[in-house]
Amino acid sequence: MITTDLTKIAATLESLEETIISYLIDRGQYKSNPSAYTPGESSFPGYKDQSLFNIRLQMQEKMDAQFGRYYVPEERPFTTGLPDAERLVILPESPLRISNYNTINLTSEIIPMYFKIRDQICVEGDDGQYGSTVVIDILALQAISRRIHYGAFYVAESKFRSDEATYRKLINDKNQEELMRLLTRPEVEERILIRVGEKARHMQALSNKSVRTIIPEDSIIALYKDYIIPLTKKGELAYLLQR
Amino acid sequence: MITTDLTKIAATLESLEETIISYLIDRGQYKSNPSAYTPGESSFPGYKDQSLFNIRLQMQEKMDAQFGRYYVPEERPFTTGLPDAERLVILPESPLRISNYNTINLTSEIIPMYFKIRDQICVEGDDGQYGSTVVIDILALQAISRRIHYGAFYVAESKFRSDEATYRKLINDKNQEELMRLLTRPEVEERILIRVGEKARHMQALSNKSVRTIIPEDSIIALYKDYIIPLTKKGELAYLLQR
Repeated sequence: MITTDLTKIAATLESLEETIISYLIDRGQYKSNPSAYTPGESSFPGYKDQSLFNIRLQMQEKMDAQFGRYYVPEERPFTTGLPDAERLVILPESPLRISNYNTINLTSEIIPMYFKIRDQICVEGDDGQYGSTVVIDILALQAISRRIHYGAFYVAESKFRSDEATYRKLINDKNQEELMRLLTRPEVEERILIRVGEKARHMQALSNKSVRTIIPEDSIIALYKDYIIPLTKKGELAYLLQR
Repeated sequence: MITTDLTKIAATLESLEETIISYLIDRGQYKSNPSAYTPGESSFPGYKDQSLFNIRLQMQEKMDAQFGRYYVPEERPFTTGLPDAERLVILPESPLRISNYNTINLTSEIIPMYFKIRDQICVEGDDGQYGSTVVIDILALQAISRRIHYGAFYVAESKFRSDEATYRKLINDKNQEELMRLLTRPEVEERILIRVGEKARHMQALSNKSVRTIIPEDSIIALYKDYIIPLTKKGELAYLLQR
């Protein structure tokens, strides 16, 4: 949603939780499948130095770029050298003040942190289903990235507008420490962690444990606590410093 | 899972329910977006007579074909003219007895039925997010198709093996009515409908209704009752008749 109303922004961020959790639950249905991430094991001709995961990510993003995905601020690509959109994408006027969205692109940090979470939610081993595995990896990565960048752009712009004088001074002084303090609301963060843990447990409560792998709610809490929330704030800070 | 054990097959089918329901919940977060399905409104050059949905479906399946998706029996393509896989796909030996999986391909019936369900779960209107809309459409369609074709192939083969003499005679006699009677277990179907309704309600129970569209459990029950179960049985019958 395109808005600078912090309540609505928080609502959008909240709504993305179900999407992220359900992709991670999906990923948990496959084993860790290290082969899918090993360069040279894809058997794709012409991609000798890459893993199946990397090849799929590049091809998926090329297609998504043709469809105009990366005109949307919160959709930041993981790869480079992407083609222009082939279709006309008409977006509503943006309240953001940034000349190039890719100035704020945290995807290179998202991939390694996603791999750590993957290792917490997947049973170790090889089930041979590499194709499905990397499809779901990319869905999960895109959803996590959307959450982080949406927060980075819109939360930062909203906070800036709520107290322009204070923020302008801190930005001019490059006072990162004080900016980070203003961007941090421990009670909100605590509420998010409780909520995503509850959702992860609840969404799997009716699943038949003999056929579904149940992913631990702690892995979802850790994902938010250690990665999504800090990376979102890192993005907010970067957005403000360039504003 | 590759097996002819009916209990394990049922478990795999059960496990696919969460995946189907969660994609439909995702789709419900976007409006119906008729523009995405209208030929000529995609603004893609060279695709004047097609809708954005159709273009995406073709491009997605081309990519999936390169990754070897359609070597898997239950992954039947919605489009034709697809390229061969570029990677080596090694599958375990199949217990199925069919020379060409595409003999059983119900995708042309799945698309119109999916559109009916989409109209039940989406708020009517246009939110401009056509790109995301068609991405989720395709995920939902692929999951529904996987459920139907997995059932069609493996349930039919399993039942055949459980009473080979009876089935062989009915197949030779082309006795479709009696075959369909043997393939129908009303108490199992009833249990599935109750279960998917409960899952649909439960998976959304903690969602904040001010930010998430809650999709009616009745639409999920109707999807299974009117489409998924009958189409699976139609596929089972077709598989047996060619066996």
